[in-house]
Amino acid sequence: MKTKEIKRPKVTITDKFWKERMEVIRNQVLPYQWDALNDRLPDTEPSHAIENFQIAAGEKTGEFYGMVFQDSDVAKWLEAVAYSLENNPDENLENIADEVIDLLERAQGEDGYLNTYYTVKEPDKRWTNVRDNHELYCAGHLMEAAVAYYKATGKEKFLHMMCRYADYIGTVFGEEGIKGYPGHQEIELALVKLYDVTGNDKYLNLSKFFIDERGKLPHYFELEKENRGDTQPFWFHNDHAYSQAHLPVREQKEAVGHAVRAVYMYTAMADLASRTNDESLKRACETLWENVTQKQMYITAGIGSMEFGEAFSFDYDLPNDISYTETCASIGLVFWAKRMLELQAHHTYADVMERALYNGTISGMDLSGKKFFYVNPLEVQPEACEKRHEKKHVKPVRKTWFGCACCPPNIARLIASIGEYIYTQSENALFVHLYMGNQTKVNVAGQQIDITQQTNYPWDGSVSLTVSPETEANFTIALRIPGWARHASIKVNGEVMDYGELVKDGYVYINRTWKEMDSIQLDIEMTIERIQTNPLVRANIGKVAIQRGPIVYCLEEVDNGKNLPSIFLPRDAELTATYDEHLLNGVVVITGKAERINQNAWGSDLYRPARQTRDIVTMKAIPYYAWCNREAGEMIVWVNER
Amino acid sequence: MKTKEIKRPKVTITDKFWKERMEVIRNQVLPYQWDALNDRLPDTEPSHAIENFQIAAGEKTGEFYGMVFQDSDVAKWLEAVAYSLENNPDENLENIADEVIDLLERAQGEDGYLNTYYTVKEPDKRWTNVRDNHELYCAGHLMEAAVAYYKATGKEKFLHMMCRYADYIGTVFGEEGIKGYPGHQEIELALVKLYDVTGNDKYLNLSKFFIDERGKLPHYFELEKENRGDTQPFWFHNDHAYSQAHLPVREQKEAVGHAVRAVYMYTAMADLASRTNDESLKRACETLWENVTQKQMYITAGIGSMEFGEAFSFDYDLPNDISYTETCASIGLVFWAKRMLELQAHHTYADVMERALYNGTISGMDLSGKKFFYVNPLEVQPEACEKRHEKKHVKPVRKTWFGCACCPPNIARLIASIGEYIYTQSENALFVHLYMGNQTKVNVAGQQIDITQQTNYPWDGSVSLTVSPETEANFTIALRIPGWARHASIKVNGEVMDYGELVKDGYVYINRTWKEMDSIQLDIEMTIERIQTNPLVRANIGKVAIQRGPIVYCLEEVDNGKNLPSIFLPRDAELTATYDEHLLNGVVVITGKAERINQNAWGSDLYRPARQTRDIVTMKAIPYYAWCNREAGEMIVWVNER
Repeated sequence: MKTKEIKRPKVTITDKFWKERMEVIRNQVLPYQWDALNDRLPDTEPSHAIENFQIAAGEKTGEFYGMVFQDSDVAKWLEAVAYSLENNPDENLENIADEVIDLLERAQGEDGYLNTYYTVKEPDKRWTNVRDNHELYCAGHLMEAAVAYYKATGKEKFLHMMCRYADYIGTVFGEEGIKGYPGHQEIELALVKLYDVTGNDKYLNLSKFFIDERGKLPHYFELEKENRGDTQPFWFHNDHAYSQAHLPVREQKEAVGHAVRAVYMYTAMADLASRTNDESLKRACETLWENVTQKQMYITAGIGSMEFGEAFSFDYDLPNDISYTETCASIGLVFWAKRMLELQAHHTYADVMERALYNGTISGMDLSGKKFFYVNPLEVQPEACEKRHEKKHVKPVRKTWFGCACCPPNIARLIASIGEYIYTQSENALFVHLYMGNQTKVNVAGQQIDITQQTNYPWDGSVSLTVSPETEANFTIALRIPGWARHASIKVNGEVMDYGELVKDGYVYINRTWKEMDSIQLDIEMTIERIQTNPLVRANIGKVAIQRGPIVYCLEEVDNGKNLPSIFLPRDAELTATYDEHLLNGVVVITGKAERINQNAWGSDLYRPARQTRDIVTMKAIPYYAWCNREAGEMIVWVNER
Repeated sequence: MKTKEIKRPKVTITDKFWKERMEVIRNQVLPYQWDALNDRLPDTEPSHAIENFQIAAGEKTGEFYGMVFQDSDVAKWLEAVAYSLENNPDENLENIADEVIDLLERAQGEDGYLNTYYTVKEPDKRWTNVRDNHELYCAGHLMEAAVAYYKATGKEKFLHMMCRYADYIGTVFGEEGIKGYPGHQEIELALVKLYDVTGNDKYLNLSKFFIDERGKLPHYFELEKENRGDTQPFWFHNDHAYSQAHLPVREQKEAVGHAVRAVYMYTAMADLASRTNDESLKRACETLWENVTQKQMYITAGIGSMEFGEAFSFDYDLPNDISYTETCASIGLVFWAKRMLELQAHHTYADVMERALYNGTISGMDLSGKKFFYVNPLEVQPEACEKRHEKKHVKPVRKTWFGCACCPPNIARLIASIGEYIYTQSENALFVHLYMGNQTKVNVAGQQIDITQQTNYPWDGSVSLTVSPETEANFTIALRIPGWARHASIKVNGEVMDYGELVKDGYVYINRTWKEMDSIQLDIEMTIERIQTNPLVRANIGKVAIQRGPIVYCLEEVDNGKNLPSIFLPRDAELTATYDEHLLNGVVVITGKAERINQNAWGSDLYRPARQTRDIVTMKAIPYYAWCNREAGEMIVWVNER
């Protein structure tokens, strides 16, 4: 029985900014990743992911190779393919996906089990190390892919395969079975998706079991470890905080441990809270949301500041040059934000989601879709990445592929499904969270409604919407006024609205009787902002970041020369925004006069009594997401202020 | 045959600042370390160092325990004892030292070999891993101790023991023997000391052999490794730069690798350059000196900015919060500076030596001599040391002892021998490098001369010297004018000197006929300086450090509250120096008005458009060396400037 139905608008993206990226995913990333999964790329670590399935299916001989979670690369690729097919039908691509699904079917056990690592390498050891070995994580990704593929194509085969797998897992885990849960959360949110499309309660209940069981005493990971005869202390300070299993989830107040695991779990918690009306789970989500976004999030929406454990460190600890800020973690933050919006329409959730989408997620891929960042630093000095041991994880340029290839397929599936993040809806209202060009069919108040958005966002805050219900109908369109906006105006059918009293939690609730081709014109003022950080963040004291609309800016060496920290932005410096269609596929650049320490005025001294020798220079900032698309070099987000 | 005799003044320290520290060494550190070496300390990792010698001597049964270089702790203790006896005869202490020397004698092999690790644990493996196993390093420390003990007591036994050991090593290594050299340099400088007291050329030649052989191809460490059957890549990027063996020493232009090894080697290079008039070695020293002091040295004279390899990282890479800056490395820098002064009297060498002595070396010990820093950071946030993995080596409070206990005995021997760093001499001149109270007998121009210095340095730049030759004699007293001094005046016998034309390389050469009780009054203006760093040091851009005379200041949480980076020192703020006799055994504190970001004006926002909300506060700075002698808390050296 479903307690709350989540309706899903059918969105087609027409937006220049996002359409371009979706094309890159379709034309570049998906084919490239397909080659990677099949080990057809020269000069790249082999993936072996498809071959693992072939071996598991008994169609090839050989050994399992790759990460214990290698299967998930195939799953995420399939999921991205599904989203891409939804926006852009492509028979050839769909045929390839069908073949992969057939292969998966042949590799799947009689009992529904599907994991190439265990099937090939340790067939007798299933479920003996769910803390480390990503069995349930891979299952979750396969389930997500199956749901997406079913929605995109209507084909049920993959979905049924994964229901069989989920059914089997339900016989292994649960009150009557293993009272364990995954070391890397993921299946929890996937099971909710499976529940959403099948309506089968047992998937929701299994997800809830995993979430509720987590962190209870006696601790399952300890029991499991003892059963394995493992006597080593766990490498992460011997602390289950690494996988957010240090406490029952409702008692967790601070984000700790591996950032991707954390946000995947919080996503599932929010999913369960909305579907089961679980107030305690909702409160836990809100508390953790506040902690992450008010104390542990970079301005790019990067999270997880520490390389050790790919983890959160502690409140207000946000160093720019040794950050971890994994692409996948910001992607997970988008997932979570969307679920929080489904629980409650509050602009803070959409603001963070937007911040992640336009900054710390898409920075993970170059403009051509050929190279990827795993780590998205906010300050880079290439020499330090090479020579300073603590910065070895910070790469000054994107790489073509990774041995641990979680990020590239994750960003592919995010971008391909960007349409899922624009709207949410309740019985009688449609919430517009993001502004980007799209044509959407949605059912509100029992009406089929066509919505179109046209905008040049994120470069311009002008958004035109048309709202066309089949027949006249009364319902609410709730428009988000971004948290960064100093001013916004709304016209409905050309008439200026005084919306002051209609605003709640950052949304303007426009309730009226809508008729065919009603228009809304939203104009959000996009001013250039100098953003400062809470002074408890030591790394950013005395510095500002430049932001315009949702876009966070950075300075690159290619525009500003070496030693970027020697640039000081005076408080009264005038900054100018200019759209440059030839730069980086078209971006608004920000320029202004700044002061710069005159290096030439220094001799060989390392230290000297202070005196000021500064020149006036022109500073040029580009969007952070687009950095490192020209030459390798230094980059900073936080600029010294004078 | 000696090519150049290095004369050594006989110095007795009377200085308040240093005498106090020497008393702490004598009354606290030496007894404490003696207990440590004998495993009599509760709650402390056992040292086992004395017991290792007892086992090696066949007087106890048991296994070797501790670091492979555990013997050196005993050696450094004996050396410190010797220096202490020189300034403060102490029969009881001397008896203990004699007993230790007797024990060492019993542990020494027939052939002269003395190393407890190999004797007890791997008797057949001598000299099979000189890259890693510190055999020659320990030998060097024992030789240094023997020389010091001989000079302090006149007893020759220990010296003879170590000559036997050196003689034996000379039969193993050399053109006709193993063409190898130590992984951790130390014996090179020790052999020069042995040469200086014995006049035996073969010790000088063996030292020269080790230095000249280093880094040659085919590479000895590779040959040795192959002989051991070791096929692993060397952990430090598989690079001999770790131990400065990547190139022949004369071709080395940049300081690389393990900082302590580096400066011990540079010390020996300078020693050899002066004793063999080796110009190429002198030039190599000068090049390396410039690199270290102009590109890789903290303002505290801390060196080695990277925990990985306890190593130099690269030019201008001087982060304050993850620095390594090992106490031993700054001590080694003092050794090296002294040798450079023996090659050439130039104030830069003395300036750096003084910077190290008053800052980054003595910071390694608390005022009571009970606790020690291995790492001397320039910025500490205790929570980060605990929770941020890259900072785990930075301890927010000093520790009582270390498993790797190199630093405490090293600082003991430095302080106990502080008198060795005040003067150098040439045939006809006495150079005064450091200002501190002392009574000294020195032979210049064939005359026995009594020198006294009285001063309240480092708190006051007024220094009174008396110069009393036995009979009237013409010679030069060369007084250093510190690089930090803006102005200094000199009176000889009460008469103001216009010394402008007598200055060379920062020394005022006063040549005259001196007679009994001639007086020199030197007054060096000690202004409070705001020091800035070459802007290529990214970490310090926009910041200043406070320095007065040789003392570098810092801000501590106990005086200034939490979140020290939120304090901004205005450029025009008046700073006041006040001597506080009750604080930290008497220090000059520096206070002034500063601005501080008002944390209360921030709500829960992490980011917001920039606006200024600053309060005026009183800032209080204390000498860096004395930090962490009250409560644990934050500390910074580099203060934001406005």
